[in-house]
Amino acid sequence: MKQLLLVLLLISLSFQARSQERKRAREYGIRIGVLPTGPLNAITDVAGVRVGHTTLIQGEAVRTGVTAIVPHPGNVFQQKVPAAVYVGNGFGKLAGSTQVQELGVLETPIVLTNTLGVGTALNAVVDYVLRQPGNEKVQSVNALVGETNDGGLNDIRGRHVTAAHVLAAIEQAQAGPVAEGNVGAGTGTVCFGFKGGIGTASRVVPAALGGYTVGVLVQTNFGGVLQINGAPVGQALKQFYLSQHLPDPADGSCMIVVATDAPLEARNLERLAKRAMMGLAKTGGIAANGSGDYVVAFSTHAGGFVPYAPTAATQTTTMLTNEAVSPLFLAVIEATEEAIINSMFRAETMQGKQRIEALPLDKVLKILKQHHAR
Amino acid sequence: MKQLLLVLLLISLSFQARSQERKRAREYGIRIGVLPTGPLNAITDVAGVRVGHTTLIQGEAVRTGVTAIVPHPGNVFQQKVPAAVYVGNGFGKLAGSTQVQELGVLETPIVLTNTLGVGTALNAVVDYVLRQPGNEKVQSVNALVGETNDGGLNDIRGRHVTAAHVLAAIEQAQAGPVAEGNVGAGTGTVCFGFKGGIGTASRVVPAALGGYTVGVLVQTNFGGVLQINGAPVGQALKQFYLSQHLPDPADGSCMIVVATDAPLEARNLERLAKRAMMGLAKTGGIAANGSGDYVVAFSTHAGGFVPYAPTAATQTTTMLTNEAVSPLFLAVIEATEEAIINSMFRAETMQGKQRIEALPLDKVLKILKQHHAR
Amino acid sequence: MKQLLLVLLLISLSFQARSQERKRAREYGIRIGVLPTGPLNAITDVAGVRVGHTTLIQGEAVRTGVTAIVPHPGNVFQQKVPAAVYVGNGFGKLAGSTQVQELGVLETPIVLTNTLGVGTALNAVVDYVLRQPGNEKVQSVNALVGETNDGGLNDIRGRHVTAAHVLAAIEQAQAGPVAEGNVGAGTGTVCFGFKGGIGTASRVVPAALGGYTVGVLVQTNFGGVLQINGAPVGQALKQFYLSQHLPDPADGSCMIVVATDAPLEARNLERLAKRAMMGLAKTGGIAANGSGDYVVAFSTHAGGFVPYAPTAATQTTTMLTNEAVSPLFLAVIEATEEAIINSMFRAETMQGKQRIEALPLDKVLKILKQHHAR
Amino acid sequence: MKQLLLVLLLISLSFQARSQERKRAREYGIRIGVLPTGPLNAITDVAGVRVGHTTLIQGEAVRTGVTAIVPHPGNVFQQKVPAAVYVGNGFGKLAGSTQVQELGVLETPIVLTNTLGVGTALNAVVDYVLRQPGNEKVQSVNALVGETNDGGLNDIRGRHVTAAHVLAAIEQAQAGPVAEGNVGAGTGTVCFGFKGGIGTASRVVPAALGGYTVGVLVQTNFGGVLQINGAPVGQALKQFYLSQHLPDPADGSCMIVVATDAPLEARNLERLAKRAMMGLAKTGGIAANGSGDYVVAFSTHAGGFVPYAPTAATQTTTMLTNEAVSPLFLAVIEATEEAIINSMFRAETMQGKQRIEALPLDKVLKILKQHHAR
Repeated sequence: MKQLLLVLLLISLSFQARSQERKRAREYGIRIGVLPTGPLNAITDVAGVRVGHTTLIQGEAVRTGVTAIVPHPGNVFQQKVPAAVYVGNGFGKLAGSTQVQELGVLETPIVLTNTLGVGTALNAVVDYVLRQPGNEKVQSVNALVGETNDGGLNDIRGRHVTAAHVLAAIEQAQAGPVAEGNVGAGTGTVCFGFKGGIGTASRVVPAALGGYTVGVLVQTNFGGVLQINGAPVGQALKQFYLSQHLPDPADGSCMIVVATDAPLEARNLERLAKRAMMGLAKTGGIAANGSGDYVVAFSTHAGGFVPYAPTAATQTTTMLTNEAVSPLFLAVIEATEEAIINSMFRAETMQGKQRIEALPLDKVLKILKQHHAR
Repeated sequence: MKQLLLVLLLISLSFQARSQERKRAREYGIRIGVLPTGPLNAITDVAGVRVGHTTLIQGEAVRTGVTAIVPHPGNVFQQKVPAAVYVGNGFGKLAGSTQVQELGVLETPIVLTNTLGVGTALNAVVDYVLRQPGNEKVQSVNALVGETNDGGLNDIRGRHVTAAHVLAAIEQAQAGPVAEGNVGAGTGTVCFGFKGGIGTASRVVPAALGGYTVGVLVQTNFGGVLQINGAPVGQALKQFYLSQHLPDPADGSCMIVVATDAPLEARNLERLAKRAMMGLAKTGGIAANGSGDYVVAFSTHAGGFVPYAPTAATQTTTMLTNEAVSPLFLAVIEATEEAIINSMFRAETMQGKQRIEALPLDKVLKILKQHHAR
Repeated sequence: MKQLLLVLLLISLSFQARSQERKRAREYGIRIGVLPTGPLNAITDVAGVRVGHTTLIQGEAVRTGVTAIVPHPGNVFQQKVPAAVYVGNGFGKLAGSTQVQELGVLETPIVLTNTLGVGTALNAVVDYVLRQPGNEKVQSVNALVGETNDGGLNDIRGRHVTAAHVLAAIEQAQAGPVAEGNVGAGTGTVCFGFKGGIGTASRVVPAALGGYTVGVLVQTNFGGVLQINGAPVGQALKQFYLSQHLPDPADGSCMIVVATDAPLEARNLERLAKRAMMGLAKTGGIAANGSGDYVVAFSTHAGGFVPYAPTAATQTTTMLTNEAVSPLFLAVIEATEEAIINSMFRAETMQGKQRIEALPLDKVLKILKQHHAR
Repeated sequence: MKQLLLVLLLISLSFQARSQERKRAREYGIRIGVLPTGPLNAITDVAGVRVGHTTLIQGEAVRTGVTAIVPHPGNVFQQKVPAAVYVGNGFGKLAGSTQVQELGVLETPIVLTNTLGVGTALNAVVDYVLRQPGNEKVQSVNALVGETNDGGLNDIRGRHVTAAHVLAAIEQAQAGPVAEGNVGAGTGTVCFGFKGGIGTASRVVPAALGGYTVGVLVQTNFGGVLQINGAPVGQALKQFYLSQHLPDPADGSCMIVVATDAPLEARNLERLAKRAMMGLAKTGGIAANGSGDYVVAFSTHAGGFVPYAPTAATQTTTMLTNEAVSPLFLAVIEATEEAIINSMFRAETMQGKQRIEALPLDKVLKILKQHHAR
């Protein structure tokens, strides 16, 4: 355990060092969309949402990790949040998805990891919930665990993610700025042939329309024909799906987590989730056959929390009407697009089972300038 | 009837005149995506597919019509085509969708019209099928009829579409170039606050990957934040959803029809249909609450035709594997994006119940140039 | 019009005469399930729900009609009801289903008719809504129109259902006892090889669990291996699917409409709808390939009505929790089973394009007695 | 490990002893449905399908286990089987379901266990696949793992299922008769308030219709109003959902696995899966809110196997037409009903955290006799 903490500490320090080198897209003057961001431009702009990472970079080929998104500071199992899942392309695993779809609630932190770590993560989330004070009699837990495949860089068959790693990500989850790039579940991912990773962004809808915040966190591991704020970066760099020069296989996956403080029930959260794929589309993603693209959306509006053991047969809630949700649709599209771009801007070149170059920011910024995209 | 023909003739002539003025996007040097188009850059590049329009422009406020897409030259009811439907956003009507989803086949031409004309069109398609030689004993017909709401320009409550209009569109359907803009079901539609209409485009995947063609036809009547080949046209013109200057309500709808000669069964056609919404996303559409966004995809590969009265209990088919479909996903994304842009490039300013300006090409082309998007 | 009224009158009289001969299942001592029925044992036990039939029996082969279910006495378009659709088997047509699924509301009466009459009925419902006082500015109507195929008895290709027939069914819809058997949309239907038709039933959940009523109306036109209150009637009569003696083709369809006064939102209404198919299963139905089995469920709880033009961005509702819905699931299963049996008990032998015998009650009652099923 | 084997041996012996006491339903003369069974009346009548159980009965409160269903004798990952999942009610966990739905194939054994054992089982299945000869380079595995909650009898929070238990179930899977009742994943389950467990049955469709076999295996842990071959057993025993005497909570779950040698692709397998819920309905199950009812269906027809690494872009298959599937629908309904009844007939009274009585066969057989149901 001490060793683990040391590793985490070192990673954390090295991360901070690196973070001075590669900035987030917006810091380079890239303005995606028309809506303002929240203060942190992160999923944690949605009050109460916390994010934790465990990053595993060990030896020559362990390049993986865990990212946990905790919906609210209380006992999520006892106070479930309205939630929905949308399957953009199902070649991937999202354990727990069907129960969320049926009951319209999420009862655990969302955990992201690598493809072959889902079982371990699932077990760890169950452990976490069973041990939480107040859950002593709980006998059923629907852990929501997603993944992308980092086997290009990571010794994925080595199954290096342990329950301790997963619990650490959950327990260290915090509000505030979110580490991006080669952290947590994004440590070993690849996006458009460049290094992918974790990214986040947020949008705030106008006060007259409710002033709600939509925050998005992504684990990017997919491909297509990269477009950044509309500029054809993939084409300019000759690296894209079906390119004759630097073909990007386009497979991989993208996990997208959407949080909002808007009062939405499961049905409208599913509609919100569906729009996140439209944000992915704007980066040039094509949801290739081999890409497991899943979206989870939840609402942190306390008035919509669903108690584990309701004391009455009915529940009174105040929810947005169908007519009021479109601004949130725009918000989630923009935030998803920017979160994906952030994941690539912040991810550094990674040497693992192979070497995957970071998005070459110098070239990219020039291309964006040419296209008036910054 | 004579009057009708005269009207159609006049419309046809005026359409040809106008067509000299506003060209398709590609004729202005706009190259969307990385794949080549088919010879016509139209849904009719998929061999056997025919398109017909009935355009109704009468008096001050009749601005509507019918567009028919006929999957193949034979008796479609007797030789059904594999097909799928994807509901991008269900605030719209697509009569017949559930049977296509269940059985995986399409058995009639696809007809598009206005929202309140669906019943009439449905009846007309049924008439058409019942009367077709060889269908004398047919007692059940699943007509696939979609719509968008042209009530902004059109006296939609007047119910001006008749069975004759629908039958004319089907019967006049032809191969070759497809009329775009203010024709057929696109006569009265509005897109991103500008005049929308019918648009089409196609893509061909590399010969080494099968050389298949994907063609798309759209009826555009939706909104968001217009982006053309990546350039932020809506923002530059200050006309977009939630704009303080020229707010676009974003509601409306988009019907998308996808044809391909690739051998795909219903499951992979549904995946193809799903990607069409990603092309819509790239134009800045947000699938707003009030937008009924539906995609129909079908395959014209004769080896996949499903006979009405099979003579055996089994059918042998040769279909693409899952691994082979990704190039088609890219193709449909690109073709949908371009078809939408074509619908706006070709649509002229329309005066009906109100005046809706055409996309101002001069300004737009300048914006595109600034952004190196042409 | 006078002629029509005369026909309707005669039918009505003859119906009353006939009704003395064949009673509902319960009047023979058949007790399906464990829950009590409502006062009428009909969908109209759900307060506010009205049912209307237009029955067309003309000449040798017109054997069809229309049945309308009106959710509440007000303007349904202005005060929409929470609703859901479940597709048991999609080989059938239910125009309007996708919008109900997306928005979670029903905005028109539900109309049932024959397969080739859907377009006409759809048009008529649109007419009805456009003309309703208060709807003068309405430009979009999502009519929900279902069907089964009565082409075995009825000259279905003759397209005998007119808009007037549909409007008559809606306008004459009333509370109170519901005519069953060979009426309305059930006039020409066939069920398990016997005469089917319209049937209805209801259940009331215990007062301690809310005391809610669930009412079901069915249009039965399907098959399988008939079971009545558990007794193997089909086998005893040697008439069933795959029987060597009297094979029942099992194709056809079943439309099921579920109403409840329980406060349910769309998600739980969809779950309720899904259980209706379990009631159908208990009658021996198999949802054969050719059977279009659809369920529509709506809630008449006024607190859940969704206004067409909401005055606020949010709506406050009080809905049953997930934990409180199971009694309603049992109720809908029992009511659906009994409604189907009622449709056959009340339907008389019909001579049309062919002769279809009524369920032979004498024999059936003996079989039930043998099996202690009455 | 030795200890484990000893435990398994003892269980196995005691099981054989007990099995002389309680027979399968058909051995008592109960004939459910109209189709003949396969030779074993078990899922293993579908050639190549193997079933393995690990039964854990330890101390006072360990009453759980694992059941594995292996689709064919080869390397299932390399030769995937067409498959589908249908979610009857999603309050349950079926890890891996979305990928099966997207790609239409199953690539691992299906493993059933208890709710809190899913993570462990998932890990074990992944281990199993990674280690299988020929899979040395595999980096992604979609394990399909289902569960029901045996926490009424079992110390479920103790997490007693280990990877070794899961692997044992897979590795010991065999053709031939299938142990039923308190074995494997059914060791601690409860059904209609009586002891549930594992059950199986099969049906063969007439030779003229293909002669295909449909086999079903169930893990029964749900409730409602028990009906056996149509006879109202639950009512007669006064033990049922909402009973004033012996209320059955109706919650729980049912996992249903359907195998067939009929050549079906994923779309028609999904339709088959959907019908299994109709068999459950005939036993009186109501798919209560708390019941996670899932169906997995797969085809063992070798011509439909989907290779992991296809050598061509297309695959030629010969599949049943839509028109030919209805006999299979009847078969799966009957087999599911009988499998559920078998699970209860074979399950003995179990003392664990509480005592759950076996279905009282003496009384039940009398009730069935009264109702001519045997």
